[in-house]
Amino acid sequence: MKTDQQGWQQRQRPPRLERRVDFEDYAQTRAFLEALAELSEAADLYPDISFGRTYVNLSLQADADATELAAEHNDLARRIDALIAPAPISC
Amino acid sequence: MKTDQQGWQQRQRPPRLERRVDFEDYAQTRAFLEALAELSEAADLYPDISFGRTYVNLSLQADADATELAAEHNDLARRIDALIAPAPISC
Repeated sequence: MKTDQQGWQQRQRPPRLERRVDFEDYAQTRAFLEALAELSEAADLYPDISFGRTYVNLSLQADADATELAAEHNDLARRIDALIAPAPISC
Repeated sequence: MKTDQQGWQQRQRPPRLERRVDFEDYAQTRAFLEALAELSEAADLYPDISFGRTYVNLSLQADADATELAAEHNDLARRIDALIAPAPISC
């Protein structure tokens, strides 16, 4: 998996976190989307996602009337990060 | 499943077919994306897709240097249509 080292970009109007991830092939892209769907359902938060064969763009938006992102958005962003670069196994 | 009755829109620059589909809930959206992934792999054609909790936007683009869509793009579009509105079972 090739990752974008920039990580999440915070943007406004509406407040949101955006991130792009690139993959080697469609199998990797699909596996990532599948894991992401599990996280979304668990958090009951559904990012706007666009993807093609080897890329995924994520946008995590604040709720309609909110002026900033909630803690749950940041939590989900961290969980998505963990999918992209799993923590090393400590022995 | 709520479907957009407009079906596919043909657009240019680049030549492409676009379609939006709306769903009742995330479970339907996810099932559609899963079936779409199977079709994409079988056809070795990967539409650009954007989706949120209850919608999917599809864009099937011609190859980089092509001036029009190939038969395989139209075939995939028909197969996607079949996912959205399965043919009635004839007795």
